[in-house]
Amino acid sequence: MTYRAAVVGAAGFAGIECVRLLLAHPDFELAVVTSDALAGTPVGQAYPAFAGACDLAFRSNEEARADLAGCDVAFLAVPHTASLGLTPQLIAQGVSVIDLSADFRLKDAAVYEQWYGVPHTAPDLLAQAAFGLPELTGAQLAHAAADRAAGKAVLVACAGCYPTATSLAAAPLVREGLVGFAGPVVVDAVSGVTGAGKRATERTHFCFANENLEAYGVGTHRHTPEIEQILGLEDRLVFTPHLAPLNRGLLSTVTVPLVTGNAMPSAEELTALYEGFYAESPLVTVLPAGSLPRTASVAGTCRAQVAAVPHERAGAIVAVGAIDNLGKGAAGQAVQCANLVFGLPEAAGLSAVAVPV
Amino acid sequence: MTYRAAVVGAAGFAGIECVRLLLAHPDFELAVVTSDALAGTPVGQAYPAFAGACDLAFRSNEEARADLAGCDVAFLAVPHTASLGLTPQLIAQGVSVIDLSADFRLKDAAVYEQWYGVPHTAPDLLAQAAFGLPELTGAQLAHAAADRAAGKAVLVACAGCYPTATSLAAAPLVREGLVGFAGPVVVDAVSGVTGAGKRATERTHFCFANENLEAYGVGTHRHTPEIEQILGLEDRLVFTPHLAPLNRGLLSTVTVPLVTGNAMPSAEELTALYEGFYAESPLVTVLPAGSLPRTASVAGTCRAQVAAVPHERAGAIVAVGAIDNLGKGAAGQAVQCANLVFGLPEAAGLSAVAVPV
Amino acid sequence: MTYRAAVVGAAGFAGIECVRLLLAHPDFELAVVTSDALAGTPVGQAYPAFAGACDLAFRSNEEARADLAGCDVAFLAVPHTASLGLTPQLIAQGVSVIDLSADFRLKDAAVYEQWYGVPHTAPDLLAQAAFGLPELTGAQLAHAAADRAAGKAVLVACAGCYPTATSLAAAPLVREGLVGFAGPVVVDAVSGVTGAGKRATERTHFCFANENLEAYGVGTHRHTPEIEQILGLEDRLVFTPHLAPLNRGLLSTVTVPLVTGNAMPSAEELTALYEGFYAESPLVTVLPAGSLPRTASVAGTCRAQVAAVPHERAGAIVAVGAIDNLGKGAAGQAVQCANLVFGLPEAAGLSAVAVPV
Amino acid sequence: MTYRAAVVGAAGFAGIECVRLLLAHPDFELAVVTSDALAGTPVGQAYPAFAGACDLAFRSNEEARADLAGCDVAFLAVPHTASLGLTPQLIAQGVSVIDLSADFRLKDAAVYEQWYGVPHTAPDLLAQAAFGLPELTGAQLAHAAADRAAGKAVLVACAGCYPTATSLAAAPLVREGLVGFAGPVVVDAVSGVTGAGKRATERTHFCFANENLEAYGVGTHRHTPEIEQILGLEDRLVFTPHLAPLNRGLLSTVTVPLVTGNAMPSAEELTALYEGFYAESPLVTVLPAGSLPRTASVAGTCRAQVAAVPHERAGAIVAVGAIDNLGKGAAGQAVQCANLVFGLPEAAGLSAVAVPV
Repeated sequence: MTYRAAVVGAAGFAGIECVRLLLAHPDFELAVVTSDALAGTPVGQAYPAFAGACDLAFRSNEEARADLAGCDVAFLAVPHTASLGLTPQLIAQGVSVIDLSADFRLKDAAVYEQWYGVPHTAPDLLAQAAFGLPELTGAQLAHAAADRAAGKAVLVACAGCYPTATSLAAAPLVREGLVGFAGPVVVDAVSGVTGAGKRATERTHFCFANENLEAYGVGTHRHTPEIEQILGLEDRLVFTPHLAPLNRGLLSTVTVPLVTGNAMPSAEELTALYEGFYAESPLVTVLPAGSLPRTASVAGTCRAQVAAVPHERAGAIVAVGAIDNLGKGAAGQAVQCANLVFGLPEAAGLSAVAVPV
Repeated sequence: MTYRAAVVGAAGFAGIECVRLLLAHPDFELAVVTSDALAGTPVGQAYPAFAGACDLAFRSNEEARADLAGCDVAFLAVPHTASLGLTPQLIAQGVSVIDLSADFRLKDAAVYEQWYGVPHTAPDLLAQAAFGLPELTGAQLAHAAADRAAGKAVLVACAGCYPTATSLAAAPLVREGLVGFAGPVVVDAVSGVTGAGKRATERTHFCFANENLEAYGVGTHRHTPEIEQILGLEDRLVFTPHLAPLNRGLLSTVTVPLVTGNAMPSAEELTALYEGFYAESPLVTVLPAGSLPRTASVAGTCRAQVAAVPHERAGAIVAVGAIDNLGKGAAGQAVQCANLVFGLPEAAGLSAVAVPV
Repeated sequence: MTYRAAVVGAAGFAGIECVRLLLAHPDFELAVVTSDALAGTPVGQAYPAFAGACDLAFRSNEEARADLAGCDVAFLAVPHTASLGLTPQLIAQGVSVIDLSADFRLKDAAVYEQWYGVPHTAPDLLAQAAFGLPELTGAQLAHAAADRAAGKAVLVACAGCYPTATSLAAAPLVREGLVGFAGPVVVDAVSGVTGAGKRATERTHFCFANENLEAYGVGTHRHTPEIEQILGLEDRLVFTPHLAPLNRGLLSTVTVPLVTGNAMPSAEELTALYEGFYAESPLVTVLPAGSLPRTASVAGTCRAQVAAVPHERAGAIVAVGAIDNLGKGAAGQAVQCANLVFGLPEAAGLSAVAVPV
Repeated sequence: MTYRAAVVGAAGFAGIECVRLLLAHPDFELAVVTSDALAGTPVGQAYPAFAGACDLAFRSNEEARADLAGCDVAFLAVPHTASLGLTPQLIAQGVSVIDLSADFRLKDAAVYEQWYGVPHTAPDLLAQAAFGLPELTGAQLAHAAADRAAGKAVLVACAGCYPTATSLAAAPLVREGLVGFAGPVVVDAVSGVTGAGKRATERTHFCFANENLEAYGVGTHRHTPEIEQILGLEDRLVFTPHLAPLNRGLLSTVTVPLVTGNAMPSAEELTALYEGFYAESPLVTVLPAGSLPRTASVAGTCRAQVAAVPHERAGAIVAVGAIDNLGKGAAGQAVQCANLVFGLPEAAGLSAVAVPV
């Protein structure tokens, strides 16, 4: 059986990556791609990677309204607040929503309003939204899958890029009770420039981004409460994002203080812990002790690489996670969540490995 | 039916890309990967893109000899001269050879010896080698396919990266008789650094290649006679390769003098000519008049983009071709040739489009 | 003696490079920097390379009008047509103009109007404009210097980036009479992204420019008539510009047909010819036979590297020139021209060599 | 007065940057450049940025022995242990040594032996070595200057690249007593690839470093004890270095726990603190509150940019420092130290600002 899918906001970087993945997916048929800005433009003209390989054209949300309502699933690759407007209606129409935006990620509407500076206009949907980070929220997604199998339209709020890499790196330590209270958990993460979005700005100008490294949004990045929520680290997290000159890739380095009094696990013990934790996760690779994640090794894919290293001298553990911010950090993860919700193999359409070099 | 395949010289850049493509191919089973230098090393350790996704390890050619002989097809991703040694034996053992090296590309052994500076030790195989550039040598490959279907082991000498991009760009003009004799045909082509190979040298050092443009091998590059042979341009070609700071991508700009006295075709006429020429070629996209190829739009794939533009003032036509030097320029093309020789759909396992950004 | 200098349009890429060079120049005092878009903004805020090192702020042209009139020289780093408006007035006020725009480069107003699509509103100034490419137009600049010494305000129309690299590479062949008529002169040149300007567009977005090669403006680039004029190649030039992923650097590869019947010079003879030609040019380096220019070797400087190689088989010579498009291709050359016009050493303030790596 | 200078190990990346700086320095005359590997090669051949601009050739240390002994100062850009051999002799010959290697940085020979795995063969020189990070060790350098003025040959052990960026970012917090004991000080720093040195390896291969982010040396990097020593943070530091795809640039992000019970300073208070701390440091720019350092803004220079931001929620302060790893992180700092030791203005020969784009 094939499911009809739509990508709303398909002209942005996360949206067009959804398009790429869905066009090659064995179980979803990409029926509608919308973009108000590029309505009428063939996909292959806006993104020439598709020239000769895709006949779809972008349509406006308004013009595609009826066809959207006829889809089984809509992937929303829209800015925050836009999903607040679109999702309730789609759900009401029986269209399951895989939301790549931030609108339904934070369980507490007040926290959303604090960090995003706008009211949350659909707080009733927060409770039913499954958080989409399958390796960590499998139970929520299984619940949504059961609902969908029973005929309900469901909502998945996919995790953001920084929260995904960071949480995959740190979750085994948190779940195992290794994270102490002696000092904050420090997350320094570096993203490629696709993470800054498609809008042409000084920040995304080649000549300013190239040959440059910078930190940004210290203490204010909106992924902070999301990471705190996933890992249960309220007010204990220092998250500093950085920008580096590459297209795709996100590396998160997480330094956690060991619980006071605990014996420091060895590198091999940490590896074993991680391997156990991710034993059922086809898209996460735990690297052997002595190896560390490289973003190039997951670029263009939905895969993640993780590793953790003990730091005896300072009583800390350093965990590292690498993803493609548009793959496992956005579109790939959305498809992975859709797979689960629709009862498909978790990695359906997502088995590609990165180009080796 | 599935065919057993080997990649010989699998640790180099073209070889490992063959590995990536064959691992995901529906009709070939990758049974053997060899590398004398990395014998014993797991593929996923040498190239961590495969970590957790590939259980193969490199073996030495010697150690894999028996298994190689049991394959249906061997992809040789070896330096020139190495194929001269390997191919006769494999053919004798009934293993079809898809040769990515230069050893059987030039039909005239004397030309080979002139440009490569070594004797050609298997000249008898030259006549039976099909030249592997499917869009231009389909008949040769069809002939090889018939031989193979009849139980013969066949040999395909795949075109090099510069010849592929250049010939796809220029062939419609040549075949249509538009290339005049008023001056040389000028090919200025630019390659990404994977084209310089895996060997760590000053030339491939990040800090010397990055933020730099340079020409090299003016008048002496070994792809010169190969382009001349494909296009029939003996002694009329000036080919200058260049290096630019990107991993994958090769852009060839070909300036041809129009036949004296001919009317200059319009951009639309040229586009129509190209579209007709490549109508049956699933992996070549002719861009609409006004658009020009971008290498990013074919990176990581076996696709090519081509376009041609009239230059009225100077009585010339400028044709441009873009490929991924490791894709359509090497491993992808090898798989495409194997597809044809084994009676599979031309684009089997090669349908991926590039990441859009 | 110190001369008061202004940079008009100082916030663009060529303008801000003028600012950098003039701030460190021993004989010019940078008194005024204008930018209508950034009026009021400190230079060090818009371009943090200057933070803590430059106290100037951008002013609007209107607000700076009186101070501009009090300068000895104004560097105009403005779009074409803007100089048409500014230059006559400045000259009338006794301010010498070093024009980085295209407005006074083409000697024939009709050619300007044909390529730029706008009327030339100051054609009377064309005759007196010195063309600013010192190695090739020293006599014009010497004449301007004499005028200025006699108290006249003078006008220098600096060569564009592609014309500079191309002409420096090809001029010795042209002047020596080696360029034949058997076919067009083919110029394929590749530029870094600063050449596309400061405006944030899809074209200059990091994620579209990075890891990409493309040709553009085939047959239509406005530097075409400029190169034709410098080299005397009307209707015999095919100029194709390309974009590659680096900030600064421009490499021009020029293929010229040898005069029919001429003996092909050897590499050493070509080198000797070039060395003689540029013997008095402190900022042009002729590379020894066997070496080819690298843009990284001149990045950030006003230097150029050139070389020429015989191509016996096809009866052609391949000449290559490398510059920094913002250095010798724009701001550096403007300062070099100003040096000559003001009777200073040609390389005053321009002696820096590139970072070696 | 001009001082005769030598660069020993001049062919490496730090060495050749010393060469570039000294060639343009007003007070040092570069008399000798040595490289055993490239002995006999002209500098301009090995590094074509110098072609036509430098007549020196590399000499072997052996061959240059007598001339070295006649220099006033030798810059040692050699691997660790090599300086242990060279320095005692040079000092004995009356040649002051500016050592870019790690051999005399750690005051405790046992710590050196622990981290470098080799015996320290000149421990008697450790006490007299001034640590070369002028903004923080000005008193040591002033003492050395007095010794030198009195006729003694002196030794400066210049800080490494990571310690420089990290310490400049964090020192004001440490000196002001703001760094608490609630958890480790976490340093995540990212370096460009010149930091990995000139040797061509898989790690420095363009195609592996490009489009990639990775951490390395977690808990084991030899700059760890150096940072601990400068900041007085023994066993309280978690330092994780990373590699990103650019040539020059090093960004260090330092997260420090605020002293328990202390009021968190505001951004403006932190800025004021930093401005006071660096008021006499011409090469350090404290960015205004709201701005953060960019490595591109200091690339190619000896400048540093620093900023600090309060992180109220987690009781921490995030300090960021940006340098060019070969500039302020190596060769520039060496020249700055030499300036001080020879009684010259601190920034003599180091006033250049970065190219703005």
